[in-house]
Amino acid sequence: MSLLDYFRSSKPNSASLAKERLQILVAHERTSRNQPSYLPALQREIMEVIRKYVNVDQDAITVHFDQEGNQETLELNIVLPEDR
Amino acid sequence: MSLLDYFRSSKPNSASLAKERLQILVAHERTSRNQPSYLPALQREIMEVIRKYVNVDQDAITVHFDQEGNQETLELNIVLPEDR
Repeated sequence: MSLLDYFRSSKPNSASLAKERLQILVAHERTSRNQPSYLPALQREIMEVIRKYVNVDQDAITVHFDQEGNQETLELNIVLPEDR
Repeated sequence: MSLLDYFRSSKPNSASLAKERLQILVAHERTSRNQPSYLPALQREIMEVIRKYVNVDQDAITVHFDQEGNQETLELNIVLPEDR
């Protein structure tokens, strides 16, 4: 699955367009897979940063992590509360 | 410019595929533009997080920020050092 497909599939449908949302996509192209991935740890830290700006429940966050060949992809989809 | 175009234009060409790289895309769909954007501040904090994991020069980071209608997009392209 390409990065473009990732993003396409995560686009909101017209029925949910009124919701405020934040999408974060992290793509890591690696030349070697000898090192362990730091994307899961990076994800946790990015979430902590986001929580400084928006009051968001864990339930409102959808996370996808994918690895294909030398490319790792992390996608966070966050539906923001209407009342901030 | 759509998000997909953003991502497409940031894909590496074949001549630079050997480089290790990290791409981060943040898209914020807002229902109201009355609040100030927190994406520039979010960008700085995300960069600080990334620097914990990779030793990267400021020169190796390309940042694009765009606003179109109710959608704000922040894109970070980072060429990682080969020797980590």
